[in-house]
Amino acid sequence: MTVWALLVEYDGGPFIGWQRQGYGLSVQSVLEAASAKLAFGPVAIAAAGRTDAGVHAAGQVAMVDLPDRFTAEQVRDALNFHLRPHPVVVLRAARASPAWHPRFSAIGRSYRYTILNRRSRPALRAGRVWHLPHPLDAVAMVEGAGHLLGHHDFTSFRASACQAVSPMRTLDRLDVVLSSDEISVVAEARSFLHHQVRNIVGTLALVGAGRWQPGDVLRALAARRRAAAGPTAPAEGLCLTAVTYADDLWNAI
Amino acid sequence: MTVWALLVEYDGGPFIGWQRQGYGLSVQSVLEAASAKLAFGPVAIAAAGRTDAGVHAAGQVAMVDLPDRFTAEQVRDALNFHLRPHPVVVLRAARASPAWHPRFSAIGRSYRYTILNRRSRPALRAGRVWHLPHPLDAVAMVEGAGHLLGHHDFTSFRASACQAVSPMRTLDRLDVVLSSDEISVVAEARSFLHHQVRNIVGTLALVGAGRWQPGDVLRALAARRRAAAGPTAPAEGLCLTAVTYADDLWNAI
Repeated sequence: MTVWALLVEYDGGPFIGWQRQGYGLSVQSVLEAASAKLAFGPVAIAAAGRTDAGVHAAGQVAMVDLPDRFTAEQVRDALNFHLRPHPVVVLRAARASPAWHPRFSAIGRSYRYTILNRRSRPALRAGRVWHLPHPLDAVAMVEGAGHLLGHHDFTSFRASACQAVSPMRTLDRLDVVLSSDEISVVAEARSFLHHQVRNIVGTLALVGAGRWQPGDVLRALAARRRAAAGPTAPAEGLCLTAVTYADDLWNAI
Repeated sequence: MTVWALLVEYDGGPFIGWQRQGYGLSVQSVLEAASAKLAFGPVAIAAAGRTDAGVHAAGQVAMVDLPDRFTAEQVRDALNFHLRPHPVVVLRAARASPAWHPRFSAIGRSYRYTILNRRSRPALRAGRVWHLPHPLDAVAMVEGAGHLLGHHDFTSFRASACQAVSPMRTLDRLDVVLSSDEISVVAEARSFLHHQVRNIVGTLALVGAGRWQPGDVLRALAARRRAAAGPTAPAEGLCLTAVTYADDLWNAI
């Protein structure tokens, strides 16, 4: 068998999330079903990030064991053939070392959260953005975001169901990017807590709306209580854009 | 009655096109139905560009006559309320002079055609792009596009059903824009012939694929026969992005 790394794009809308459950359609289950056609038997697939229901990915990374006889192009194209008609595609496939794991070997994850900040609901970007009709103060959001950069106890921004051992995380990037009618929050870290990006965005939206001052973000962080921070922003605005590894997976071989 | 100019965004996917027909759902018909709720009676809506079935708009401009009592915000919000659940929204409404007409007063139109140029079909951009899996030579496409800039007889790039009196048009801009896995063609002119952008893109795709040399575009143009140019690119990659007028409609009043 060969260990394959897969770069995967999906529209999270129709799925219960990455992870297979006892019910519903998951990204993992449709990828496993497609892989089973190549392996002539059941396969288990692991991913870098177990995205929640409705969260999209432009650069999820997954791992699958397949029989030795395929080229990278064959793995990509055959999986894409069997993934139809689901909105999940494999962008690249590359041989990985047996020691590599998409989740545990990852040294960085990037997310983009997109807010559509205009009066009218989205027509072309429906299902890809969080629509906030009242004008947001992006400068205040930038200032609020600044308080969260770096190494902190993110208990206030962590879902109660979060299973991580430690609430300590290091945010390497938390940019607020303006472009016409969109405000995007770009977040990078080695790893994130459950709902961390969405809880940060929900909090920054309070700052943008003027209901919080930028300094209130610092107070929410210091409180180390989930209730001290803002609400969880909706899933549909979030996209896992990239996962990074110490070695370049895609051009290594 | 007051003449209103409307800036309109829509996902062309579910529609038979802008124009009302004896059958099917058109963008015009859903806008007219929403406007009728405000006018308490039938209304007719005109637009700058009668986009074809499946073509999107981020900046279509339309005109509607409504009773005098509304503010611009009320027109926008009430139309958006009645437009649900269709993927059509009014971004702005502004009072226009009785002499103004969205189609005949327009002095410029901008279209963007997006090609997804990668092996894997689109998951996140499905319905918004033309998927061409084989690598295109964008430099050759730029060279081919250069032959079409300026004032020409565009008979070779005009649908046989085109009703324009003259095949002469002036292309002010025809850029080929590269960004990661997308190649976009951005076209600007005072007005376009029927299918002109899609026929140009279908022809440039032949150049990008290496089946045509850039100079073949000049030969196709000179032939003045539709059959001399390439095929019509699919509707779903096309978006009407802007219409311009001598006066700034939206900030004038």
